[in-house]
Amino acid sequence: AILEVNGNLSCRCAKTTSEYISPKKYESIEIRPVGSSCRRTEIIIKLRTSGKVCVNPEAPWVKKLLKRIASTKKK
Amino acid sequence: AILEVNGNLSCRCAKTTSEYISPKKYESIEIRPVGSSCRRTEIIIKLRTSGKVCVNPEAPWVKKLLKRIASTKKK
Repeated sequence: AILEVNGNLSCRCAKTTSEYISPKKYESIEIRPVGSSCRRTEIIIKLRTSGKVCVNPEAPWVKKLLKRIASTKKK
Repeated sequence: AILEVNGNLSCRCAKTTSEYISPKKYESIEIRPVGSSCRRTEIIIKLRTSGKVCVNPEAPWVKKLLKRIASTKKK
């Protein structure tokens, strides 16, 4: 991954995708809020099959996903 | 942690807290949606100082946190 020297030294995602990934494929979703070491919010989806995907926090389906998780009621 | 034998064999959180944790302390937030191995949504906050905290997905401040992340605009 290309290390960005402008203070984003420990961003995890060199690039992100806006392509939809079905929730059935997720094992977990990691959100790394804007912090001292990385100047942008990063959302990393860990897949059940193995492997991780950096998704674009601005992508509409990502926003909907986070909102849906926020509003889930206890089953 | 007590292993729950009712199908929640690989839940990560034996118990959760509803106590507020300031976002300044987060390194990352991991969301583990309801899945085959764990029958409840789990939200694990990784702290900058080290250590992880399982927070209650139903806690109002957790819901607000997720909604705020979902609606952040690109800076």
